[in-house]
This record gives sequence, structure tokens and C-alpha cells, in this order.
Amino acid sequence: MGTDPPVAGSVDPTPPAAPPTTNGAHALIRTLVASGVQVCFANPGTSEMHFVAALDDVPEMRGVLTLFEGVASGAADGYARLAGRPAATLLHLGPGLGNAIANLHNARRARSPVVNVVGDHATTHRFDTFLASDIPTLARNVSRWVRTCEAPERVGTDTADAVAAALGPPGEVATLILPADVSWGGPAEPAPAPPPAPPRPVDPDAVTRAAAALRDGTPAALLVGGSVTADLDALRNAGRIAAATGAKLLAETFPARLERGAGIPAPERLGYLGEFVLAQLAGIGRLVLVEAQRPVSFFAYPGRPSVLVPDGCEVVVLATPGEDGPGALGALAAELGATTASPPVPGAQRPDRPTGALTGETVAAALGALLPEDAVVVDEAATAGLWAPGATAGAPPHTWCSITGGAIGYGIPAALGAAIGAEGRPVINLEADGSACYTIQALWSCAREGVDVTTVILNNRSYAILNMELDRVGAAGGGPAARRMLDLSHPDLDFTRLAAGFGVPAVRATDAEGFTDALERAMREPGPHLVEAVLATG
Amino acid sequence: MGTDPPVAGSVDPTPPAAPPTTNGAHALIRTLVASGVQVCFANPGTSEMHFVAALDDVPEMRGVLTLFEGVASGAADGYARLAGRPAATLLHLGPGLGNAIANLHNARRARSPVVNVVGDHATTHRFDTFLASDIPTLARNVSRWVRTCEAPERVGTDTADAVAAALGPPGEVATLILPADVSWGGPAEPAPAPPPAPPRPVDPDAVTRAAAALRDGTPAALLVGGSVTADLDALRNAGRIAAATGAKLLAETFPARLERGAGIPAPERLGYLGEFVLAQLAGIGRLVLVEAQRPVSFFAYPGRPSVLVPDGCEVVVLATPGEDGPGALGALAAELGATTASPPVPGAQRPDRPTGALTGETVAAALGALLPEDAVVVDEAATAGLWAPGATAGAPPHTWCSITGGAIGYGIPAALGAAIGAEGRPVINLEADGSACYTIQALWSCAREGVDVTTVILNNRSYAILNMELDRVGAAGGGPAARRMLDLSHPDLDFTRLAAGFGVPAVRATDAEGFTDALERAMREPGPHLVEAVLATG
Repeated sequence: MGTDPPVAGSVDPTPPAAPPTTNGAHALIRTLVASGVQVCFANPGTSEMHFVAALDDVPEMRGVLTLFEGVASGAADGYARLAGRPAATLLHLGPGLGNAIANLHNARRARSPVVNVVGDHATTHRFDTFLASDIPTLARNVSRWVRTCEAPERVGTDTADAVAAALGPPGEVATLILPADVSWGGPAEPAPAPPPAPPRPVDPDAVTRAAAALRDGTPAALLVGGSVTADLDALRNAGRIAAATGAKLLAETFPARLERGAGIPAPERLGYLGEFVLAQLAGIGRLVLVEAQRPVSFFAYPGRPSVLVPDGCEVVVLATPGEDGPGALGALAAELGATTASPPVPGAQRPDRPTGALTGETVAAALGALLPEDAVVVDEAATAGLWAPGATAGAPPHTWCSITGGAIGYGIPAALGAAIGAEGRPVINLEADGSACYTIQALWSCAREGVDVTTVILNNRSYAILNMELDRVGAAGGGPAARRMLDLSHPDLDFTRLAAGFGVPAVRATDAEGFTDALERAMREPGPHLVEAVLATG
Repeated sequence: MGTDPPVAGSVDPTPPAAPPTTNGAHALIRTLVASGVQVCFANPGTSEMHFVAALDDVPEMRGVLTLFEGVASGAADGYARLAGRPAATLLHLGPGLGNAIANLHNARRARSPVVNVVGDHATTHRFDTFLASDIPTLARNVSRWVRTCEAPERVGTDTADAVAAALGPPGEVATLILPADVSWGGPAEPAPAPPPAPPRPVDPDAVTRAAAALRDGTPAALLVGGSVTADLDALRNAGRIAAATGAKLLAETFPARLERGAGIPAPERLGYLGEFVLAQLAGIGRLVLVEAQRPVSFFAYPGRPSVLVPDGCEVVVLATPGEDGPGALGALAAELGATTASPPVPGAQRPDRPTGALTGETVAAALGALLPEDAVVVDEAATAGLWAPGATAGAPPHTWCSITGGAIGYGIPAALGAAIGAEGRPVINLEADGSACYTIQALWSCAREGVDVTTVILNNRSYAILNMELDRVGAAGGGPAARRMLDLSHPDLDFTRLAAGFGVPAVRATDAEGFTDALERAMREPGPHLVEAVLATG
């Protein structure tokens, strides 16, 4: 959007020149489709109208309308994590890109491929007025690849380059800025898809070094991330290596995509709190990284360390992001003679249906009792979701998506995108009350698209994590003025009404039995549903 | 926000070091308060917890919690337009700033002073991980003044510099980036308020040139903007000059603040559509600009001009933004001997209470019939609001605030801020359905703060302006796929439920009588109300 009303009476516009039959917008969309980019999460404005018009000419492209750009960018992230290929966004100038930044930040941290299309004023309309702003500068916050397409005849190749940049590996947010006259100008031809770019093979020396580190008798850990946690064979090889060497098997704090459940080796995720990570790594003398970063704390705190690798611990990088972590783990398992080992795996086990008070713990138990096979869990549950991973550890195999970049407002949009990217798999979105309010408009797109998403709102009526952080950072006071800034009651948010306002059927639960029944019904029925879990406090 | 949950069990944190009694956060808030910045629209996260904690020690600062950063930035814009002084924002790292960009863009175009405070990781925590991103680069999209405060002892002076930059004149968005350890470190002393910076006086030669241009017999126009439209004396002088010289009196398309109503000279606002502006300026040979830009069209269109100043028209700049336009108009009126002229003004006149179908026109008539004296109208009504300025032209004196930068999602947040900045004046927010959905969370802050805002949702169930733009840009097609991207039905949005979900009482009206009654009740009762006007279509 970003258009504005006439302030005076109507006019009689002169008819515009006849448009080219194949314009820049057609070339853009056809190149995307040829490259496997077949969904566009859009919030268009005037400068994007030719893109919108071209959708009727290229039916292979699915346009998904969102009411806010942060929904589009979060959905593109969720889509990419499940589909394994990029979606496009369609955003309106600098302000539209601004609204998309937070979820593009999460996508960047997830290394999700996203083709981020930002419409701009025509190249003939570069004045410092109204909607004009410095789009490339804004884009660099989330994109290494940023290009303004300057002519219709370049749209095809620029788009193919954008797709190639987005795919990496590693995946990234590639921002293509499309001036309106480049979109409406022509003729313009689509370009062929960029060539496949598999991950870079790992240097055999790295495998040798990792094997030596794991063999030398020093307590060791194998820390996996990136594409490894999304790959069952890679997880199995990691589990075999850990079993064969005695190394501890760890995963990133917030995996973009983690395959898990009964029968799947389960790395222990690093904690959110630095002191917990220090405990997890205590005594470790060799740390082997596979598409994972050196552990640092999420935030800094007075008097506490940010770097969490123990003193004297040798860090060995087996694979960087963009390198072939799964292949490297296969080679390492072979090097260690571990390819036939049976790694320990969680057995099939579900908690009983919970009863009594509705708490984070009983919500988790209900999820564990009911989670369908092949489900996707999109987790932005913050403190209230602490128990969910544990309660679902022995559930049937499923996929878990975390908020990778800490930019709140990821969950509802990502669940929308995941449901479209996962082709019919049920999606459960665990969503904290405060987090839900950043991009609540995503519910409307869920309703419009009819996606099978069950949104569970964990409503504790506060930014509970900030009450904890207020104490942890050593902030003196925490008096009534401070506590009021973390309180989400006064007035209470009513998520069933919000959902209904956006067209999603919703129910409220206030005890464990009621919640479990509501969750079961919501998951059984196709289409979007919301269950508000009003958590007992105190 | 932007914090995230522990993924594993609880820990026993070591107690943090004793905090300084006067830290950077105290110095920041005390310097702001000393400088007249006494409201902070906040959406804090962990790195801002010391700022939050310090609120209890400096009760002169009013913290207003928002559920989304775009609400905070839009409210700061609305506050500044009415209060005439800046509010502060409090945002959480790059993603929080990203969410605020769209409304900061509007504030930049309004030349609203805003002290934009962005918390960052501690200076000891500069790793490329989780929430880290390039904040200064992002800020430059909306701020010329961007500074990272690097030490607690610099907080006072950096904050005073930020206030000075924000005040200008012209006003601007000044971004102060505050690392967490600078906030918690100390001791730190507040700085005194920056010295007053009145607008720069206009060069007397400019007055002479403007007088000559208006006297030489060529058809002329006086185009006013910036501080002029917010100043009754300046508007009267502009009216006198126009009356004395025969010049046409025009105002910017989207004034940040326009004083208007019965008895106040009423410049004709330039149109949104370029062809209308061309008609308004047809035959004009001398164009005198007073804190206004040379007219260009909002968007470019195929085959149409972007620059709207007629060929051969001489443009004379009497005052640039930041110069003293009101003073220059006084000098110009004196130079022209027009100081005692009686400018034409609209008489007191209200439309009758409307009956029949509910349309943009009858909504406007109801507003005209009922608008209270001294009201503030915050206008983001897009196409459906086309008739509102006309219907209220003879209403009692009131203030009109427009969306200056075209970044949609301005209205509800700006109305919140305007109500706090305008100290008890009633606020009416005309809000299009599509626009409302960008920052609908602002309703919750309206409820919490109990502000006297009546939000009128003009619900035509479409991005109606984009249907017009789709045709105007000459986009071929406009087939079902394209039209679906502009359609806001399927499902219909229910704004009464959305409002209730955020704690604001709401009613729906479907005919003119019902709407008029609902508007009257909403405006009579203090506190926030929402009236959903379901417009007749076809």
C-alpha cells in the first residue's frame, strides 16, 4: 500500500499509452516460476500494480495477499524452511520494506532463501518527496545481495541472479528493487533458471581434524546446525559419531528446522541462558562445529561472559554454513568407522492427557499427547513454551521451527508460510500472547488461504520473559512504572475476538481438560483455528 | 521484545554486580525530561530493561507501552504534531527499529521532531549472531542524525544533542543508539536542555523577490506548507496576501498539521492526482513557495508528467522548511501593504445529519454535522475519505493531520499520540479498512491510556485506491488474480470484534442514520471508541 487519497474532486485522466504485451513484470514472474519460485507473499501498492496485473498471465505463480509486510516476509521464511526453496515477497517501497525487516532478519538468521522484491518509484520519478527513501540502504540490514533493476531488458537476468543469490548456499535474503517503469516497460524476456548450486564439499582435511579431535580422549562435543538438523540421515550420522566416540551431541539454540520425535537422534539444544550453556559445555575440551556458530549468549548481562566456549577448549570447524554439513558427517562417520553404529534415539512415548490447571506444562502435555505424525510445530511460545520440546520428544516424527533471529512476530506469519510450503502437513503454532500482537494480521491470510494451521495462544497476560530479564540484567527497581511496561493486562487481550475479527474460528480454554479437547478438535478439522490458552498465574 | 525462551531447564544465576545508583538510563531520561521530552512510546526488550527500570526513579517521564514498534513511532509523530515538541520512542535493536521505520518515514516527511531511542547489545557483545544487525545503516533511511552512545558519561550530552537535532528546525527524527552496558553503566550525569533554536529568519531579499513576483501582473499562486498551515496568524497573513494580490492560495497535498474551519483562511490543498494539480496550477506564471516543495506527483504513471510546475512558471522560494515561514509571510504582507486586509474565510456552516445509504459522502456529512470545536482529525481514510475535508470546511475551528509520507498504518497510532499531545482535545481518526490493519494493535494502547479517540473505520472491503491505481497505471488485465490481490473480503474483516479484542468498545453502522447516532455517542463519551462504517458498494 502506501497510496493516498485524492483531496479534491475527480479528474478525467488521459488514456495511458498502450502497454507492451510482455513487460518487466511478466519477465520477473516468468523467471521466478522457471526457477521454482512459485509463491509470492505480497502487500502491493501503486508501484507494484503491473506485477499484480501480470499474475493473471502467469497462473503458475500463486499470489498470497497479506495485510502487512511483516506477514509477507515471515511467511516467506516459513515457506522456505519447509519447501526447501524460496518464495518471493512483493513489498511497496522503503516503508513496505521497513515493515518486512524484522521477519527478514529472522529469515537471514535461518539462512532461508527469500527473493525479496521491493517496488520503487519509476526511474524518472526520483524526487525527495512523499514515499521516496533510500531503499538499498535499508535492504542492506538484511541482504548482502541488493540490486536495483534499471531497465526492462535486464529484469530476466537480474531476477535469475536474485534467485541464485537467495539459494546460496547458504540461503539468504536477496533484495531486487524494481522501479515501476522497469516493471511496466518492455518488451522484456524472462531468463532461464540459474544453474543448481549444491553446497560446497568440505575439505577432507577438516574431516581428518574433526576425527582427530573426537578420538584424542579429551571430552568432546559435536554441535550441529543449519541443514544438518533438517536432514534425517545427517542427524543419524551425527548420532552414530557421538555414540562411537562418546562425544556429546548438541544442536543450536534455535534451529531453523529440526527433525525430531520417536526414532530420530535428538541432539540436546543449547540453552537460551548463557549460564545454562556454560553448564552444558563444562569440561568440554574439543568442540566440533557442523554448520553452527561458536556459542555466544543471546544477550549480554552485567558481570557475565558473552563468549560461552570454555577456556582452553579447542574449536574445530567441520563445516561452515554453506558447506555440505550432511556430507561431512557422512565422511566423518566413515573415517571413524561409525557408519553402522546404532545411535540412541527417543522411544515412542506420549504424556497422558493433562488435567487440572492450565499452565505451560499442561499445554505442553496436551500437545505431546495429541501431536499428529508429520506435523510442523512453529514455536514462538517464549517462556510459556518451555516444556513443549520435552513433552513432544517421543511424539511421532515431526518438524520443529524456531525463531532464529529473536525478532518477535515471526510465529503466525511463519505458520502461514510453512503450511503452504509443507503441502498438506498439519501445522501447530505455539504463540506467546505478546509475540502474537506484532503480526496478528497474519490470521486473516490464514483464513483466506484456508491453511491447516492451529494457532495456540499461550496467554499469561505479560511479557513474562521481560519480567525475568528485568531481574537478570540487575536493573534496580522494577517498581510499578517498570512492571506496567511489561504487563499485558489492563485491558486483557481477547484473542478469540481478535481471531474472529480476522475470520479464524477460535475458542478459549481455561483448564487443561478444556484445552486438550479444544486442541484435539482444532487439529482434527481442516483449515485454520485458534485456541486461546488462558494460563493460570501465580 | 525480541527475547526468546530458555529451551532447557532452569538455572541458578549468579547475582549480578551492584548497579550504579545513577546509570546511563537515568541520565538519558533526566536529560529528556529537562529538555521537555516527557512522553516515551515504548516497546522494550531485554537490552532496554534499565531504561524501563529507571522510569520509577523519574516520574516526570510518562511511559506508554505499545504492542508493536510502528505504534510507538506513529504515536510519536502524532504527539509531536499536536504538542509541538518531541516525544521519545524506545525500540529494541534493529528489528524493533525496522518495525518503526514506516511511521518514522511519515514523521520525517511531516518534519516532526522525534527522539528515536534504539537499544542495542552491550559494546562487549558485538557478535554476528541472533539479534545483531547493522542498526545505524537502518536508521539512516529515516534519520540524518544517527549516533551510537559509546560510554555512560556521554549519555547526557549525546541525548541533549539528539534533542537538538530532533528540534531542528526543521524537525527531524534523531536516532540515538544506546548499547545495554552504556545504559546500565555509570555513574552518568544528565545534561542540560539544548538551547532554543528558533527557525532561521528569511533573507529580506527573498521577501522582496516574492513581493515582486506577486505584483507583476502575471497569474500567481502562493503555496504554503510546514509550520505555516499550523499557525493561525500565518494563515491569516497568507490569506491577506492572496486577497491583496489576487494570487491563488494553495497548501501542500498532505499537510502535517492544518488549522481550519469557520473563520480561518482556507488554502486549497493540492490534489493527490497529478492531473488535478496540473489543473490547479494551469496558467500560473509565478509560484511562491513558503515551507513547501515544488509540486511533483505522488507516483509516476506511464505517459504522464511527474513534475507539475507549468512550463515557464517562475518559482520563488520565500521560505524553505526550517526557515521562518510565518515571519516571512508577516514581512511579505507588510511589504505589500496587506496587513489590514480581510482575507476571505469559510463561514460557519454544517451539513445536515445525513440519511439513507452509508457512503463516503454520508460519513463525511455526519462528521461535518457533529465535529466538536477544537477537535483533532487524524485522516488516513484514503479514497473513502474524499468528501471529509469539504463537509467539515465550515465546522468550528479544528486541526487536521494528514499522512505525509504515504506509509500506511499511520492513523490509529498517530491518533493515540495526538490525543496525548493535545491535552484533552477530542480526536477523531478517519481510517480506511486496509490501512487500519497495518497497526491495529494501537487500539490496545488507546484503551490502556484511556485517550479520547473516536476511530471511524471506513470499511469498503477493498484496497479501493489500488483498484483505481491498477487502471490508472495502464496495467493490462486486472483479471481475477489481480483483483483478488486488492480485495479485502473473503473473509470480511470484523472491526468491532478486533476493537473489542483490544479492549476498545465498538459498534457497527450500516446506514447513515445509524452511523450518525453512533458517531455522536462515541464522541460524547470520554475514552476510546470505534465505529465501523460498513460502506454501501456498487
